[in-house]
Amino acid sequence: MSTLPSAIRLGAILFDGFELLDLYGPLEFFGLLPDRLEVITVGERVGAIQSSQRPAGLAEVSLFDEGAYDILLVPGGMGTRRLVNDDRFLKALAEKAKAATFIASVCTGSALLARAGLLEGRRATSNKKAFVWVQSQGPNVEWVTEARWVEDGPFFTSSGVAAGMDMSLGLISRLFGRETAVQVTDWAEYEWHEDATWDPFAKLNGLTKG
Amino acid sequence: MSTLPSAIRLGAILFDGFELLDLYGPLEFFGLLPDRLEVITVGERVGAIQSSQRPAGLAEVSLFDEGAYDILLVPGGMGTRRLVNDDRFLKALAEKAKAATFIASVCTGSALLARAGLLEGRRATSNKKAFVWVQSQGPNVEWVTEARWVEDGPFFTSSGVAAGMDMSLGLISRLFGRETAVQVTDWAEYEWHEDATWDPFAKLNGLTKG
Repeated sequence: MSTLPSAIRLGAILFDGFELLDLYGPLEFFGLLPDRLEVITVGERVGAIQSSQRPAGLAEVSLFDEGAYDILLVPGGMGTRRLVNDDRFLKALAEKAKAATFIASVCTGSALLARAGLLEGRRATSNKKAFVWVQSQGPNVEWVTEARWVEDGPFFTSSGVAAGMDMSLGLISRLFGRETAVQVTDWAEYEWHEDATWDPFAKLNGLTKG
Repeated sequence: MSTLPSAIRLGAILFDGFELLDLYGPLEFFGLLPDRLEVITVGERVGAIQSSQRPAGLAEVSLFDEGAYDILLVPGGMGTRRLVNDDRFLKALAEKAKAATFIASVCTGSALLARAGLLEGRRATSNKKAFVWVQSQGPNVEWVTEARWVEDGPFFTSSGVAAGMDMSLGLISRLFGRETAVQVTDWAEYEWHEDATWDPFAKLNGLTKG
């Protein structure tokens, strides 16, 4: 990517009630490319941050500090229900996103991007179990019901939880080429759903017919 | 399970150089059942523990403290290369494992179980990229080259990284029934490889022919 530096900084956002796999699934894959990409954990505060599933992760730096990231990764989880009304958080998120080349979200993370005003007129997707709630957070977003993930400009938004891993491989493919993405999947013994339109969970949750 | 209490305690082992998805993939799924199962993070020390991919997790209690777990979850990662020669760690691991009803490992976590003397005469599997090394850690183990995961008595050993998620759903199915495992996959938008013999990565890494 001509617009990205050779050592890409990925800022992974942590907040109380983040969804465990939303964050660490993508970070497994990005973390397998340490020569090309540096992963930095960016918390709503520095230190221990408890996930929706209880186990805590560690944030190295604060979202409210200076510091820019080439890629921003925004997970979902129950904490998003609180943060959609947290103006200070949304303002900081918007600032970091505007300085980034790519912004990736998993699950209800796209509700945070919508509330931060980043997705106006954009195509995006989200968790299929929380889709109606997410839609209500961004009335001017073109929400795509049936998609594993959606790419629109700098935004890579994915469906629920496990979909974040497939989206991340899509982003790795965009950044470094498909061969690198496939190497990552082979190493991690992961079966990549490479087709971004694959989405049995939209139908399962009554969002599409057929 | 008649041998398990109603509130099952799952101890998830953390050590420096644990593999991120080995640990947090399974903990996502187990963590979705908080009414039936309590997840406790058990470190080689209390506090921050750095993963192979750099982001750190948090251990609540120490492996060297008293405290028994009904289920033990042992991840892999580069840290296993050090720990196969750490007698104090292996002794503590063996003690906790002997007190547990089920012992689950992901990736090279099975090398730790083997070196702790827990897999003698048992069938087990491991990461397909590190298979020769893992085999050398347990000459009296019946290593299964082609398997997503292997169940033998109390042991659920899985292949590399992402395979731990499929194995965990197999264990959830055993503990609470298949319907509960499927509910978890639907919620997390995860496509479960339910067939424990599914393993394209054995062939990919030249471990099987055909």
